[in-house]
Amino acid sequence: MQTLRDIDSVSRLSQLWRARNLRLALVPTMGFLHEGHLSLIRLARQHADRVMVSIFVNPTQFGPNEDLASYPRDFARDEQLCRQEGVDAVFYPEPAGMYAADHSTWVDEESLSGGLCGASRPGHFRGVCTVVLKLFNISGCQLAVFGRKDAQQALVIQRMVRDLNVPVRLLLAPLLREADGLALSSRNKYLSLAERQNALSIYQGLQEAEAEYKSGCRDAARLCEIPRRRISQAGGRIDYIELVSQDSLQALDPVKAPALLALAAYFGKTRLIDNIFLD
Amino acid sequence: MQTLRDIDSVSRLSQLWRARNLRLALVPTMGFLHEGHLSLIRLARQHADRVMVSIFVNPTQFGPNEDLASYPRDFARDEQLCRQEGVDAVFYPEPAGMYAADHSTWVDEESLSGGLCGASRPGHFRGVCTVVLKLFNISGCQLAVFGRKDAQQALVIQRMVRDLNVPVRLLLAPLLREADGLALSSRNKYLSLAERQNALSIYQGLQEAEAEYKSGCRDAARLCEIPRRRISQAGGRIDYIELVSQDSLQALDPVKAPALLALAAYFGKTRLIDNIFLD
Repeated sequence: MQTLRDIDSVSRLSQLWRARNLRLALVPTMGFLHEGHLSLIRLARQHADRVMVSIFVNPTQFGPNEDLASYPRDFARDEQLCRQEGVDAVFYPEPAGMYAADHSTWVDEESLSGGLCGASRPGHFRGVCTVVLKLFNISGCQLAVFGRKDAQQALVIQRMVRDLNVPVRLLLAPLLREADGLALSSRNKYLSLAERQNALSIYQGLQEAEAEYKSGCRDAARLCEIPRRRISQAGGRIDYIELVSQDSLQALDPVKAPALLALAAYFGKTRLIDNIFLD
Repeated sequence: MQTLRDIDSVSRLSQLWRARNLRLALVPTMGFLHEGHLSLIRLARQHADRVMVSIFVNPTQFGPNEDLASYPRDFARDEQLCRQEGVDAVFYPEPAGMYAADHSTWVDEESLSGGLCGASRPGHFRGVCTVVLKLFNISGCQLAVFGRKDAQQALVIQRMVRDLNVPVRLLLAPLLREADGLALSSRNKYLSLAERQNALSIYQGLQEAEAEYKSGCRDAARLCEIPRRRISQAGGRIDYIELVSQDSLQALDPVKAPALLALAAYFGKTRLIDNIFLD
């Protein structure tokens, strides 16, 4: 496995692989890898001849009051996990190598980015789209894998790829959970034991809403109220809970499949996101 | 020569060429080709194995009160000129094929795009960057050629390519003029005989400013005043005249090489742009 820190080395390697007709899948991550990331790597491996993992805590997708500085990092461990998974190359750039001091070009998705996390985190998806397009261009990948935990992100990137005719095929992998239901996230590391326990209310609330949906309820406000109450009772602070179309991310009421019930909530200072699909 | 109207055909052709290790240069145009465009095609030919010309009057780079509807078009003539120049493929898409009804992703360059034409034409460079990136992705070109008449456009695209790590090498071709000095432009067709005669004041004014610069003047206001007076006396209406750095497009005073003296002026309803480099 090669670990590459500069853009030119990645491009050279990618051209070499392309000349040999090897299909490259990229798995873009912010590092501090967990089983969710590893499932993306395994999916990449199934569809490609070479797998590259990028590890980059992208500063431009964090707001001024967010957790860029404290975001968990452990490159040595990440590198070892990638090696164990048979990753072919890890791209681990410096921020200064990714953004020139006078960087001035941004990719803006202006429809799907507006609600949900985009409303709470202005500029977040602009940073995501910009860095993802850069990583696609640097790596020259034919495939890229994203997880469905970041449901809105996956849709925004799909839209960007369509709108800008980006020659990359996207593979979306399902959200993974701990045995007790907590969605896997690098940010779970921030949680105290008590917060972690309380955060189980997120998936409990989502499951209860799903059961209510399956038993026939199509009232969006009522379906959202179920996890809202459950999370609040557990001491969580709701950022948003919305029931939206899986395609347009527009609010749905009455609910019509395919729908997405998505939420963000704080436990202590930690902001967690989760979602379920109602099909 | 192949004429292709849909995106998939272009991508297939491009992949075929790439598999055969043939280097492709793209010449993006809005059609109504003149000698300036042909010089771009010839430059492309010198550096590539295959040359593709795109002909697309891109609606997203026109403002609501601009000349999108009346922009001159003559595809049959364009096609013939391309054939004569040995172009390998012409990409002539429909607007509906280029922009989905719910298109929502834009590429914004936010530094170099602010002044000059960007100040007079809000949204223009956003449309340009977006369509150029789309055309790069669709064609899979390794090279692309732009003319220096659109000096700001060339710089904005260079910046976009750098910032987004677009794997395309840019070739910039010099501005071409008629024998009497009028810069070649598809929009010259709009000019009445009298307007065309009066528009010669543009290059005359630029040349006089250049002479003044060469004789030692470094006063930006004074150098701009020369074409301003000359054009106004000929009945032209100045949109802007600015003396800026060739790199940053920031105003320079005193003038320091490498500088760009750029202007836009109306003769009748026709907006013409021109520039000279002060090196």
